Amino acid sequence: MNQVVPLYPLMYEELVRGALREDLGRAGDLTTDAIVPAGKRARARVVARQEGRVAGVEVAALAFRVLDPAARVRVMVGDGRDAAAGGTVLEVEGMARAVLSAERIALNFLGRLCGVATLTRTFARAIAGSKAKVVCTRKTTPGLRALEKYAVRCGDGANHRFGLDDAVLIKDNHVALAGGVRPAVERVRDAVGHMVKVELEVDTLEQLEEALTLGVDAVLLDNMPLEDLRRAVAMVAGRAVTEASGGITLDTAAAVAATGVDLLSVGALTHSAPVLDVSLEVG
Amino acid sequence: MNQVVPLYPLMYEELVRGALREDLGRAGDLTTDAIVPAGKRARARVVARQEGRVAGVEVAALAFRVLDPAARVRVMVGDGRDAAAGGTVLEVEGMARAVLSAERIALNFLGRLCGVATLTRTFARAIAGSKAKVVCTRKTTPGLRALEKYAVRCGDGANHRFGLDDAVLIKDNHVALAGGVRPAVERVRDAVGHMVKVELEVDTLEQLEEALTLGVDAVLLDNMPLEDLRRAVAMVAGRAVTEASGGITLDTAAAVAATGVDLLSVGALTHSAPVLDVSLEVG
Amino acid sequence: MNQVVPLYPLMYEELVRGALREDLGRAGDLTTDAIVPAGKRARARVVARQEGRVAGVEVAALAFRVLDPAARVRVMVGDGRDAAAGGTVLEVEGMARAVLSAERIALNFLGRLCGVATLTRTFARAIAGSKAKVVCTRKTTPGLRALEKYAVRCGDGANHRFGLDDAVLIKDNHVALAGGVRPAVERVRDAVGHMVKVELEVDTLEQLEEALTLGVDAVLLDNMPLEDLRRAVAMVAGRAVTEASGGITLDTAAAVAATGVDLLSVGALTHSAPVLDVSLEVG
Amino acid sequence: MNQVVPLYPLMYEELVRGALREDLGRAGDLTTDAIVPAGKRARARVVARQEGRVAGVEVAALAFRVLDPAARVRVMVGDGRDAAAGGTVLEVEGMARAVLSAERIALNFLGRLCGVATLTRTFARAIAGSKAKVVCTRKTTPGLRALEKYAVRCGDGANHRFGLDDAVLIKDNHVALAGGVRPAVERVRDAVGHMVKVELEVDTLEQLEEALTLGVDAVLLDNMPLEDLRRAVAMVAGRAVTEASGGITLDTAAAVAATGVDLLSVGALTHSAPVLDVSLEVG
Amino acid sequence: MNQVVPLYPLMYEELVRGALREDLGRAGDLTTDAIVPAGKRARARVVARQEGRVAGVEVAALAFRVLDPAARVRVMVGDGRDAAAGGTVLEVEGMARAVLSAERIALNFLGRLCGVATLTRTFARAIAGSKAKVVCTRKTTPGLRALEKYAVRCGDGANHRFGLDDAVLIKDNHVALAGGVRPAVERVRDAVGHMVKVELEVDTLEQLEEALTLGVDAVLLDNMPLEDLRRAVAMVAGRAVTEASGGITLDTAAAVAATGVDLLSVGALTHSAPVLDVSLEVG
Amino acid sequence: MNQVVPLYPLMYEELVRGALREDLGRAGDLTTDAIVPAGKRARARVVARQEGRVAGVEVAALAFRVLDPAARVRVMVGDGRDAAAGGTVLEVEGMARAVLSAERIALNFLGRLCGVATLTRTFARAIAGSKAKVVCTRKTTPGLRALEKYAVRCGDGANHRFGLDDAVLIKDNHVALAGGVRPAVERVRDAVGHMVKVELEVDTLEQLEEALTLGVDAVLLDNMPLEDLRRAVAMVAGRAVTEASGGITLDTAAAVAATGVDLLSVGALTHSAPVLDVSLEVG
Repeated sequence: MNQVVPLYPLMYEELVRGALREDLGRAGDLTTDAIVPAGKRARARVVARQEGRVAGVEVAALAFRVLDPAARVRVMVGDGRDAAAGGTVLEVEGMARAVLSAERIALNFLGRLCGVATLTRTFARAIAGSKAKVVCTRKTTPGLRALEKYAVRCGDGANHRFGLDDAVLIKDNHVALAGGVRPAVERVRDAVGHMVKVELEVDTLEQLEEALTLGVDAVLLDNMPLEDLRRAVAMVAGRAVTEASGGITLDTAAAVAATGVDLLSVGALTHSAPVLDVSLEVG
Repeated sequence: MNQVVPLYPLMYEELVRGALREDLGRAGDLTTDAIVPAGKRARARVVARQEGRVAGVEVAALAFRVLDPAARVRVMVGDGRDAAAGGTVLEVEGMARAVLSAERIALNFLGRLCGVATLTRTFARAIAGSKAKVVCTRKTTPGLRALEKYAVRCGDGANHRFGLDDAVLIKDNHVALAGGVRPAVERVRDAVGHMVKVELEVDTLEQLEEALTLGVDAVLLDNMPLEDLRRAVAMVAGRAVTEASGGITLDTAAAVAATGVDLLSVGALTHSAPVLDVSLEVG
Repeated sequence: MNQVVPLYPLMYEELVRGALREDLGRAGDLTTDAIVPAGKRARARVVARQEGRVAGVEVAALAFRVLDPAARVRVMVGDGRDAAAGGTVLEVEGMARAVLSAERIALNFLGRLCGVATLTRTFARAIAGSKAKVVCTRKTTPGLRALEKYAVRCGDGANHRFGLDDAVLIKDNHVALAGGVRPAVERVRDAVGHMVKVELEVDTLEQLEEALTLGVDAVLLDNMPLEDLRRAVAMVAGRAVTEASGGITLDTAAAVAATGVDLLSVGALTHSAPVLDVSLEVG
Repeated sequence: MNQVVPLYPLMYEELVRGALREDLGRAGDLTTDAIVPAGKRARARVVARQEGRVAGVEVAALAFRVLDPAARVRVMVGDGRDAAAGGTVLEVEGMARAVLSAERIALNFLGRLCGVATLTRTFARAIAGSKAKVVCTRKTTPGLRALEKYAVRCGDGANHRFGLDDAVLIKDNHVALAGGVRPAVERVRDAVGHMVKVELEVDTLEQLEEALTLGVDAVLLDNMPLEDLRRAVAMVAGRAVTEASGGITLDTAAAVAATGVDLLSVGALTHSAPVLDVSLEVG
Repeated sequence: MNQVVPLYPLMYEELVRGALREDLGRAGDLTTDAIVPAGKRARARVVARQEGRVAGVEVAALAFRVLDPAARVRVMVGDGRDAAAGGTVLEVEGMARAVLSAERIALNFLGRLCGVATLTRTFARAIAGSKAKVVCTRKTTPGLRALEKYAVRCGDGANHRFGLDDAVLIKDNHVALAGGVRPAVERVRDAVGHMVKVELEVDTLEQLEEALTLGVDAVLLDNMPLEDLRRAVAMVAGRAVTEASGGITLDTAAAVAATGVDLLSVGALTHSAPVLDVSLEVG
Repeated sequence: MNQVVPLYPLMYEELVRGALREDLGRAGDLTTDAIVPAGKRARARVVARQEGRVAGVEVAALAFRVLDPAARVRVMVGDGRDAAAGGTVLEVEGMARAVLSAERIALNFLGRLCGVATLTRTFARAIAGSKAKVVCTRKTTPGLRALEKYAVRCGDGANHRFGLDDAVLIKDNHVALAGGVRPAVERVRDAVGHMVKVELEVDTLEQLEEALTLGVDAVLLDNMPLEDLRRAVAMVAGRAVTEASGGITLDTAAAVAATGVDLLSVGALTHSAPVLDVSLEVG
């Protein structure tokens, strides 16, 4: 079983509160308020309707607690663990109005984050047996980067950089504007601090050869055929982290991993993961 | 050609600015700042690598303008129109650093919103010939509801309610807590204003029969077999808007539409649309 | 006795906190801090100095709780009920400094919202016996719309739309720009979703006649003489909600209601209600 | 003619933007967007339907400019000047959609602030000929204090303190908790800086006598009969600013001013001013 | 021992939360999360490594409580009291991860505020025996004015105005633009309310003479030689508060105070105070 | 001459606007507004009264532009360059009120950031001739980290990590809680991504020896005597970046640098830099 360090609520509670406000709007939950009497309590379960990897259960729990601070929430399947189809992920007991009014927001967060975690897990399983890991990109939902990167970790993936400012990734456009790989890397060396790693995108083995002489920490092998990837891994020979990227799908992941690269970069983890189907069952 | 009313920038500019800050972090774009000289200018095109329906091009444009207020952006394919594979959606000319630093955020918004629009369009096309429309749900990304609902309109879909407060949708949980359809509808009638429409979820034709006596504006026919949908439409006979929901896919949409329902509710439009593949090409 | 669904604190707590910050400024309550010793406790009552309808008592309570989270607040007259002149609306017991420092903000919210509720109640009583209801408009205080619309409900009034986005109201300017009532209504029909109601402002019985052929949900009968209102109601004959608007005062409300219209639109409920005189009595 | 120093937009632009967002909600102006074509321009005038004192015209102008940054706004009657009944306060020319969508927010700010200014002016005129001024209180609308105090200045009124932190006002509750006037004033003297003025509320001439020995900057003569006010002014003899407060109305203001007090405190200026009736006329 | 009125958490909690978010970034505390097991608890002490005056201990405590709401914090040396070198200022017991992750932010606030308080105390001691007080200026850290002014009070200093809006200070530039001291003071008299004090900067005894005829509340004697200060105090003779400013250091403070001025203005209190060296000791 | 990449205004403009609001408060600049006529223009220069390194000149410029968007600002000494004593750093020409009202905030930012840059430069010069660089820490002012780290770069210093999330720094408390250096490093290796560097604090040469076997990217040599630093450098022999920390002052910096370490960590750069004395001269 996987152990994932949870995020502090400080890091997402404004998101949860904002999402609830976005849904409640100016008038609140017209339907629930009209129908459900004030003091009525309810017990409900958040259920996974598909098997999947859980991520974001505390985020979902917070949605209920914001509307009913006295609600009792019990997490049945924690982040980084697998929920069975039909399995209960969390139970909540509190004011019936709050439970119903928070339902959609709780599920929107949970379904989305479980979706990311589950797709990540699927990729991770596809390359099990290799030494490679699947990593996410900066192709995340605006505003949700920390949560989505967290969901990737919940799904046994690893995180690439979190933003433009915590690591260097020199891409083809940078190389073009610098007038070559060498000046690009050298300018970076001059500019960045000692705690910053540098990765260089290379498209060909020739570029890779030059890169290796420059001592970068990692190389992004972009859109290379499998054979080139294999040769690239051999050329690098452990001198840099090797990361394959470009159109990697569940169909091709195992073959890419078998080339010996350290990492498979998969933007789809965060930009195209379908939600996990989760629902709330009252009573 | 489709004409979609654009949103005011006031409605999304904090999102764009927030997304740029999320990406730039505390130190800015280490790579670009190290490599690209200060005064250098660049011209770039945002290109659709797949055919698709455009949504959010002004949102993407704003990302460039926030980092370079003097950047010139030219929209080549406006929202609600189709971009060819390889086609240019927008051109930008401005400070090279700004173009590269804003690239990912511009693409993250555009790819996601085009993804929603394109999936919506696919559903809309699947039911072309019927009188039905495809509608979205409240299963949207936290913080992005207005934009995603807008993207649905760009994709020839229609919007269901925007939140808990602009219309009533009485679901099974509400009916259960109210002790029946009639008390649920009556409590709503007593509580809500004259500008609020009321929809009722029904699971069976018996419930539908009761619903029709109560004069609701719309009925959500949840998870009904095609045959029941057809009979439901006949029973309703124009007295309410009919909306089919529950597991509607591209495979089943046409058949559902053929039952004569007015609307097909598809949560996947916003919760599971893969991004449209868009990229930035410099020079 | 009237039962009003309370708002979630999530929907107003930033307002309360912001108002306290606006009053405390950068240095806090100079007077109280200088005079009242740190540990001293106080018991105080918020008293209505005039008879009136209560609204916002939980908002006022929150002002005390923000400054003293351990303060005990007891609501004596809940929202939607009537306070006698001299009657205690809420009691608070807590740190003396917090009670005094929060006093003005608690009273500012309470007095204003009770003012709206009380004026609404006065209108509601003026038309008692008729089937009509009094409704508010979008002429609300910037930032306080949700609270003021809530106060209208507390005063036995009903809410018109909450914003530009939850219902359609076609006014004279729209008609003029569209080139007529028919194109205006038709464009709206094409554009808006199935959960959105449409109201049309008409100034004459001729316009009303055209409106009725277009099947709108409601008609706003603007500035019509009583005789025209009566004829309008007869013409509509239940096919649309009828709403009278334009200069309705307490003097004229009963006569307007007697014409048989469903609703009386009164902007003054939110834009010109005098506060209810409430005060804090310590000890 | 009166000259009032305008506020910097920095001090209210978030309010204007927030109010527009509150009105536009998640979907924008459904009516206008459906009816008015995209490129259409409009010319409109904001008209005072009643004679009154103008305040907030730049705030209203900003509402239009936020939705159409290229809109041309021409102020016809500036803040602190009088608008005739039927007179044009500002003209705007810009995108028709923006003009209509911003209309209500522009008018909500303008009507409210003109309402405060006009009521203040009415009080100011009622006491013309005396040396007294009318001053406002902290009984302002939550979030709008700076604007409402500004509107008081536009109406020839003066401002009392802006919050709990910019001046000291020792009220009866403070005196009671301190165990007397003297200890209250002495504690304040010890605590506050040299740039802070001190005012003391007194209810009787006996209290006033004690107050005068303590050297406060101002005395608030609360709910005193006219005769006592006269005697109080004589007792003070210029040693402190004298401020009458408590239930002062337009009927009583002149008589209060005639007692020789320096200031009349009128909470109603900000808490109960009816709006000035302003409207937008297109074309 | 000194007694300082604490600030309400409402006045700084967004600062603390913001500072924690600034430090935790998008991924949280990588080091601590990797190393310290989830349930592990820790006990730690915040220790002053230098003798100094304490300010901000509740602000520091809040940093721990935000990350672990159940953390128990015990304040050992309250604000306004002196901590010995090596002395414990506060103890905290809670989740080990939270204690380590909040450490730096707690110390950043505490060290900075204690630094301000300690420098203020040093100045206050330097002039002990005189009747003068040391006061701070508006030369504060952007965003931290309320806290830094509070720290000055903790260090036995007094506060000058908190902003441009709570008192008047007429400086040389104002006098120049007004065309003289008299018109400057007269324009101010006309414009500001009765609760606002007026101070005038004078550079020469001639200017002072004019100032005294104008009846200002305080005079800022800027950059005057000691002899002039002495003569200025004699000229003022109690008719205004006298404040010396301009390059006052610990070396000159006593001599300045000995001239008989009421106040010494020292910008360095907030703009150049070195931090007090505080650290966290675990276990 | 030094070339420093400027920050995007997006990264600090809320700080500038917030600081202006903090200073203007609820009533604005009472003094300036009373004295300076509305249309009056002014020309002013921001002058360094001491020689120093410039940082933040665009931040200061923005303060003027926020209050007068049409103000013309001319930067005379850009960030990363040296200003002579008495030299003009920027010139501004615009509305006189705006220039005076923004003065203090412009100077507060500029003085503080130049102070950081100048102190950094002083350290950098102290170790000139060695290959070492001076680096800052996370001991920054809450809310100003990005700006202060930027100022360090302007002063020829380098940045250590920007937060807890962009690099790993294993300190003594972590080692203690992990039960040794090896488990601490191993847990980190398991947990963090490939783009994250790892630094380990060591207090003794024995710990260093162990650290080197673990392959960390950098070692923090904490509070080591010079002789130990020299031996540490020899032991490391280029296998890791070496960083000396602990009580490094201007007196000791050169000797520390002479030991051959790569970096000198100096918290004082951001936590105790005195401001550079800058002022505004009008006319």
